[in-house]
Amino acid sequence: MSEHDPSTPAPTNACAADPLSRFHAVIPAGGVGTRLWPLSRAATPKFLHDLTGSGHTLIRATYDRLEPLAPGRVMVVTGRAHRDAVVGQLPELGEDDVVIETEPKDSAAAIGLAAAILHLRDPETILGSFAADHAISPDSLFREVVAEAVHTAATGRIVTIGIKPTYPSTGFGYIQLGEPLDVAGAPHALTVRTFVEKPSAEVAAEYVASGEYGWNAGMFVAPTALMLHHLERAQPELYTGLMQIARAWDGPERDAVVARVWPGLPKIAIDYAVAEPAAAAGDVAVVPADFRWDDVGDFAAIGRLNPAGSGVTVLGEHARVVTDHATGVVVTGTNRLIALIGVEDIVVVDTPDALLVTTADNAQAVKKTVEQLKAAGADDVL
Amino acid sequence: MSEHDPSTPAPTNACAADPLSRFHAVIPAGGVGTRLWPLSRAATPKFLHDLTGSGHTLIRATYDRLEPLAPGRVMVVTGRAHRDAVVGQLPELGEDDVVIETEPKDSAAAIGLAAAILHLRDPETILGSFAADHAISPDSLFREVVAEAVHTAATGRIVTIGIKPTYPSTGFGYIQLGEPLDVAGAPHALTVRTFVEKPSAEVAAEYVASGEYGWNAGMFVAPTALMLHHLERAQPELYTGLMQIARAWDGPERDAVVARVWPGLPKIAIDYAVAEPAAAAGDVAVVPADFRWDDVGDFAAIGRLNPAGSGVTVLGEHARVVTDHATGVVVTGTNRLIALIGVEDIVVVDTPDALLVTTADNAQAVKKTVEQLKAAGADDVL
Repeated sequence: MSEHDPSTPAPTNACAADPLSRFHAVIPAGGVGTRLWPLSRAATPKFLHDLTGSGHTLIRATYDRLEPLAPGRVMVVTGRAHRDAVVGQLPELGEDDVVIETEPKDSAAAIGLAAAILHLRDPETILGSFAADHAISPDSLFREVVAEAVHTAATGRIVTIGIKPTYPSTGFGYIQLGEPLDVAGAPHALTVRTFVEKPSAEVAAEYVASGEYGWNAGMFVAPTALMLHHLERAQPELYTGLMQIARAWDGPERDAVVARVWPGLPKIAIDYAVAEPAAAAGDVAVVPADFRWDDVGDFAAIGRLNPAGSGVTVLGEHARVVTDHATGVVVTGTNRLIALIGVEDIVVVDTPDALLVTTADNAQAVKKTVEQLKAAGADDVL
Repeated sequence: MSEHDPSTPAPTNACAADPLSRFHAVIPAGGVGTRLWPLSRAATPKFLHDLTGSGHTLIRATYDRLEPLAPGRVMVVTGRAHRDAVVGQLPELGEDDVVIETEPKDSAAAIGLAAAILHLRDPETILGSFAADHAISPDSLFREVVAEAVHTAATGRIVTIGIKPTYPSTGFGYIQLGEPLDVAGAPHALTVRTFVEKPSAEVAAEYVASGEYGWNAGMFVAPTALMLHHLERAQPELYTGLMQIARAWDGPERDAVVARVWPGLPKIAIDYAVAEPAAAAGDVAVVPADFRWDDVGDFAAIGRLNPAGSGVTVLGEHARVVTDHATGVVVTGTNRLIALIGVEDIVVVDTPDALLVTTADNAQAVKKTVEQLKAAGADDVL
């Protein structure tokens, strides 16, 4: 395999091949999901749970959603501790399809390493990054949108997905939609006017009412060449380190180079390392989408995703729940009998060694409690 | 031991002995405490739990409260299934001090059998009946009141205790206090004007404001001769059966007679079988009391008995509870970490195989859920 120098972007939009045949899906599977404690924790992070009642873990559902778009071309980046669980969930993955982080280094290093490895394997690669622990439906609509994003990426852009908001969330970033791009195979692709961080409730309500904004779901699709180009300019140290590792990746020196280089890499989010510099350069686009999307960030999301009508949403393979004038969410990893009497919007999360009782309104506060437990050294339940 | 015929009351007030030397305490230890499910259940009823944070089970605390008044003269009536647990709690009990009900027959049979046995052992006995699962403090004040009740009983009366109400409870019966009785050794003893069943909130508030009413704590003290006299007149069938068993009790025929007679005995509460007929005959008295008393009837009571100030009351030997903006009660029989976030007046009861989440306001509704579980055949958690 000859190395293509990504510091000079390849003329990807001149490539004759169908852009979809160049598409490679990357699933970063990191992050514990602290707000979903005690269900989600270091040993069993969020992506290893079925939080939508589908019968599949979130990472399995993510793989199944992507695989038809990129058959045999799905890569997972995960931590050493979760390798076996990931491979257990996705036995289809080959040796080349799993990238292990020896220690967590945030999203720019994780996705950047995948980009560098795939780029060296094939410099024409169009990479799409999709979190392992989001809930999306229907899959068919998702795939239509991603296919448009791939076609748009093939014209030399970093392409985001802008989800049509269904409520004025203050927990997500927003993308202000711009003008049509007129890309073949991507009739809905638009320019991006601005990216906005999590807004206030008032501003979020304006955004939703205007119809001009989409939620920034953190997905993006781009040629690896373009990604690495922006990474090199914005984070040269990170770029150099990742390229060193990527060059050794498919050879006998992998472990030695990883051990030498990875620990010193800077920790930075992919948004700052790639997306913002690309936006500044006018290299970003957006495909609006109205599939259902949720980052399943807290237990309130689980209630939204699994509406129970007037009663109690129950998740858990062996759940045994009785209720009397109760509403809310029960997530259980045990087979204990759980009785809820006269409680509204309650959230009960039952695990063998820890129990959480809160309300949907307080779902975000779970993180604070987990931090207190960490500070108190309660590692056995974290 | 010669048999005294209790159908003719003995002239107990003519007896020269100190009434206290004739006093025998009986502790009926039946009743599961359904409203305290899942803590209290068939196998481990309420009286086997420490619900006051004292470090002692309720039955142990009851015994310790009574024993100084009736040294060596405390009898427990309990079910076959709880014999070992009771004796484990009260190793001081002799063989003669434990009466086993082969099947539950309500309070008239349980207390009536104790009365009949004690009467045949000593017809001068003054019996006091005190539930095994109530919370009382301070013990010294309790003993002063019971001593007055014993002196009053010695004048040939069935004597109740009227607890000074601390709030307008609709869960307890009330006793309307009458005129002073002028009994030696019982300066506070009064006649009873009326007994009132659980009143409405409005009526309860009037009672409390008037100062003329005491809570009927279900305790009473009476000569066994007088009790049996009223029982014979009101419930002749029950009386005859109990006397048959009592005559055989201290001999070799006990088991055979119990097996033949007990199953056919009528089920009736002691209030209907003895207290009401006695009241109609003008044979009742009351000693007002202002010790602290609670029947620990539900989890709201546990909150009242163990005030946590502004936070969460926690009961449980291995409890491990973290809270953030939470108030209420946690009772745990496990060592699981329990996190409460943003919940008010919550009641969480955590046991190895069942979990209850409710609020203090709904504490009484627990019984309904237990009945539903029973109807559904969920015997493993009942």
